[in-house]
Amino acid sequence: MPSGGVCGSAHERSVRSEAADLTNVVPAAVTIDRMTPLRIGLAQRNVVVGDLAGNVERISATLVDAEALRCQLVVFPELTITGYPPEDLLLKPGFVADNLAALHEVVAATAGGSCAAVVGFVDGEPGGVLHNAAALCSGGALIGTYHKRCLPNYAVFDEERYFEPGTEPLQLFDVGGVRVGLSVCEDAWVPGGPIWELGQGGAELIVNINASPYHRGKVGLRVGVIAQRAAESGCPVVYVNQVGGQDELVFDGASMVVSAAGEVAARAAQFLDELVVVDLDVPSRPRNEDRALPLISLPAPTGTEPNRPPLSSAPARPLLDPIAEVYEALVLGTHDYVTKNGFLEVVIGLSGGIDSSLVACIAADALGAHNVHGVLMPSQYSSDHSITDAEALADALDLDRRLIAIEPAYAALDALLAPSFVGRTPDLTEENLQSRIRGVLLMALSNKFGWMVLTTSNKSESAVGYSTLYGDSAGGFAVIKDVPKLLVYELCRWRNGVSVRNPAGIDVIPVNVLEKPPSAELRPDQRDDQSLPPYEVLDPIIEAYVEGDRTIAGLISAGFDEAIVRRIVRLIDLSEYKRRQFPPGPRITAKAFGKDRRLPITNAYRG
Amino acid sequence: MPSGGVCGSAHERSVRSEAADLTNVVPAAVTIDRMTPLRIGLAQRNVVVGDLAGNVERISATLVDAEALRCQLVVFPELTITGYPPEDLLLKPGFVADNLAALHEVVAATAGGSCAAVVGFVDGEPGGVLHNAAALCSGGALIGTYHKRCLPNYAVFDEERYFEPGTEPLQLFDVGGVRVGLSVCEDAWVPGGPIWELGQGGAELIVNINASPYHRGKVGLRVGVIAQRAAESGCPVVYVNQVGGQDELVFDGASMVVSAAGEVAARAAQFLDELVVVDLDVPSRPRNEDRALPLISLPAPTGTEPNRPPLSSAPARPLLDPIAEVYEALVLGTHDYVTKNGFLEVVIGLSGGIDSSLVACIAADALGAHNVHGVLMPSQYSSDHSITDAEALADALDLDRRLIAIEPAYAALDALLAPSFVGRTPDLTEENLQSRIRGVLLMALSNKFGWMVLTTSNKSESAVGYSTLYGDSAGGFAVIKDVPKLLVYELCRWRNGVSVRNPAGIDVIPVNVLEKPPSAELRPDQRDDQSLPPYEVLDPIIEAYVEGDRTIAGLISAGFDEAIVRRIVRLIDLSEYKRRQFPPGPRITAKAFGKDRRLPITNAYRG
Repeated sequence: MPSGGVCGSAHERSVRSEAADLTNVVPAAVTIDRMTPLRIGLAQRNVVVGDLAGNVERISATLVDAEALRCQLVVFPELTITGYPPEDLLLKPGFVADNLAALHEVVAATAGGSCAAVVGFVDGEPGGVLHNAAALCSGGALIGTYHKRCLPNYAVFDEERYFEPGTEPLQLFDVGGVRVGLSVCEDAWVPGGPIWELGQGGAELIVNINASPYHRGKVGLRVGVIAQRAAESGCPVVYVNQVGGQDELVFDGASMVVSAAGEVAARAAQFLDELVVVDLDVPSRPRNEDRALPLISLPAPTGTEPNRPPLSSAPARPLLDPIAEVYEALVLGTHDYVTKNGFLEVVIGLSGGIDSSLVACIAADALGAHNVHGVLMPSQYSSDHSITDAEALADALDLDRRLIAIEPAYAALDALLAPSFVGRTPDLTEENLQSRIRGVLLMALSNKFGWMVLTTSNKSESAVGYSTLYGDSAGGFAVIKDVPKLLVYELCRWRNGVSVRNPAGIDVIPVNVLEKPPSAELRPDQRDDQSLPPYEVLDPIIEAYVEGDRTIAGLISAGFDEAIVRRIVRLIDLSEYKRRQFPPGPRITAKAFGKDRRLPITNAYRG
Repeated sequence: MPSGGVCGSAHERSVRSEAADLTNVVPAAVTIDRMTPLRIGLAQRNVVVGDLAGNVERISATLVDAEALRCQLVVFPELTITGYPPEDLLLKPGFVADNLAALHEVVAATAGGSCAAVVGFVDGEPGGVLHNAAALCSGGALIGTYHKRCLPNYAVFDEERYFEPGTEPLQLFDVGGVRVGLSVCEDAWVPGGPIWELGQGGAELIVNINASPYHRGKVGLRVGVIAQRAAESGCPVVYVNQVGGQDELVFDGASMVVSAAGEVAARAAQFLDELVVVDLDVPSRPRNEDRALPLISLPAPTGTEPNRPPLSSAPARPLLDPIAEVYEALVLGTHDYVTKNGFLEVVIGLSGGIDSSLVACIAADALGAHNVHGVLMPSQYSSDHSITDAEALADALDLDRRLIAIEPAYAALDALLAPSFVGRTPDLTEENLQSRIRGVLLMALSNKFGWMVLTTSNKSESAVGYSTLYGDSAGGFAVIKDVPKLLVYELCRWRNGVSVRNPAGIDVIPVNVLEKPPSAELRPDQRDDQSLPPYEVLDPIIEAYVEGDRTIAGLISAGFDEAIVRRIVRLIDLSEYKRRQFPPGPRITAKAFGKDRRLPITNAYRG
């Protein structure tokens, strides 16, 4: 395959965003004359970016477990050694060298055992050409490597910034009598790519290691694509994904084994760090000597072949329902961002509104209620229910809470500004002032006690700029920044319903919070719908403009109201500067604000 | 040349960062039997990203001028139609379609004239494969196009996110009897690439259209590289660059004509929008019929060949000295960010320190002193000289200024926090509180009067996090965020010296500001050197770690003090989260914080 040929074409990008269509896939001819049993560990691990020593420990501990469970092969996620994505750490030659040294520790850890391991790492010369690579290690030796051929450079991915595509001839590895071919993540999203080639070359099993970030609908998309590759290659596919939060990305795991017929034969849980062991009967395939890829042997296992009583049936964890899935993504993303950055406790401004209520629930579920501090900061415009609802929520979650009425600070700042504001009437300035005082108070508590501030703006608000820069947008992590307002309601209703998060079905979020009209409460009798169209109208426009990359003309011809479209699009464009100063937050849609959507701030396009 | 072959290799990246070495370049054989005179316009224009209609107007007006000046060819920068970089606007099919329509307006504008034009645009099918392209238009017709072959995807560039490299066969255009080959920006940075191929194919003149952002030392680097391409192809090169600020990038212009012998035969000014007209005597070159590229004719000019009296000698504007160059980059970057985003006036907190003094000078030079508002915001810890120095600066620049003493707001907020802070001693919390009150006041003035807040943190501070999030880092544009502290001093001394900016050599910045020890004045007798090593020690470590991508071990072996290195590197890593919420600011070094340096926030690497 010419380097960058099949993989590099922009045509694939549109394929990726569609559900897999199996009708066009011609399965490779399969004549099953024999089944080879193989015990495989899917090491769905929560590795940490840059934590080379820690990741080596995670891998080594997993190797011990896999050995104890008598696995013959254990498969780790993409770039296991460095964590994914390492971003510009890859530009440091010293980091690449340290990653190679860490790989050799992992290789050494396979000595004396009989389980082979596939581990992701950065291959290449520090300071020179780099590859996103998979290593097959066994018996203390590095048996072989594979260099990823298809490098994603769209959406949140920048792999062409760092890596060159692999061009070396493919090879297969004999693991327990099964011919195994290696591939990495994006390789599996390309029809007729390296996985097809491995199948043509006589592979019997495809290993695909991944760091595939979550968004809504992604799991189904993946199953379809992997089923296509399985059919195309004629082999079962072992798909192992990273799990855990990394800045804005949440890796959801859901590793799986897909049979050559496209059925999910085993699945690891979503959002959980776990080692799943699967007994696979791998159908043997004929090998056309003309096209056969080189087959690399592994060192013979030392000692006698262990007794390997069959496991009970392969685990196939059920998928979460669509709302629970988003909720768990937010919980994992929040937990990992807070703890991986060295924090234990968080602080949240509780307004009695639906956004801060949801964020408080997520934080309590992620970190434990005892690590969550709620602060009520009423002003002269706050309603009574804003306090009682916030108190009810804090009590239901059993949070530490305090009340700081902001009026004295507002009065002091207002007086300082009065000489400058002579002859001017109150406007958004005074509304923002209240919001910023709250931001200052939360940051002071953060600085004094080492609590990370969680911000509560949702995606609908940050889209149209319905938030105050350095006010309600101030903080370390913006838990629901990628959650549109209507989905905020769905998540709250789900959290109040019966689930593993709420076995007794208690209304943790007061019903009044769900029922009252949304308001920022920054002036008398303010309501969101005085400034914005109803969220039932707003959210679909935002989705079509932001995620759909439509123009104004396209939105109007799709049936949206012209005046509303023009106003909302203008607000979205004008708010780019605000979003650029937002804290990070977990991505749960197919296009989040952040590195997923790189719009210029200075932008005169009005289409 | 195979697509992505020569251009796609990471090897070039290291070549790019070195000064061009002409010793390895074998000049193509040149037998000059004839010189063909050609009048060329270098249209170094300040186009605006997304402003399709405005850019068409800028191009059309330039065409009229070029026609009046009897140019035979006028050359515009890369992606003239869309401005550079359009970023994710390119993902909108509607934007690409609008850009094609805009190109056809430009083509129509060449009707009836005799001057051909090279214009940059996005070619391709909206929603399909896109190319970064150059169009040659003449006599109202689109004569031909060229698709950029070498796509930069490093540093601030993400072109592989959007474009496919060109693969079409090359061609030449007969302009006034000269065989002209087209190329785009990065094509010129690759030895043996498309420019070499054009030379081999019989080109007599290379046109290279650019959007090459400024950093210190870039102009010299460019001259070396273009001289290499001229020598390699055997042709003079007409290099036209965009000029203007676009978010964090400053395009510096400095368009030029480089002779086949590598001499700069003409040069446009740095940082100025201008049309430079050059009479070039193009040496004719023999054409090897075996390798000759197709030659495309242009429509014959209507009417009689105009009388074209020779111009006076070609303009070769002198280059600015290295400090003046940085200053002018900051002025242009600030002017364009403020005005292209619809602002006229700015507000700056004046502390009497060197950073805010420099920012005030730049703002006054960029926008006019009458558009700059200074605010003095002393606290109980402010020294007398902080006020007198700030007043002296404001008076010297003739700025509007006001004084708002922040103590009443501090007292009010302190009282609100007192119940939470019982038993705690003052620490950074209280220092940050003062800084944040200033941020709140500046933002209130901004909201009320529509003034953009300019922030004053320098690169040394933002590197090590010596700034307050939502405090002194709050604002719309961070004018000196990429300027290390020692360079801040150099710029101040330059601004006080005799120059076109200061013909009388007045000490606009009070000498005391340059001489007193730097201090944030957030606690009694505070000085920067209580928290940080001297800037003479700090700045080189930051440069080596940030711009040089060194590890701790590498820095120590380079001779830096181990304890200081470990502390500074840790501070730099820990401050990533703060920098992520910084306003944009102009890039003047080879690696600025921002999209130039994409480090994870969650990052456990300690090397």
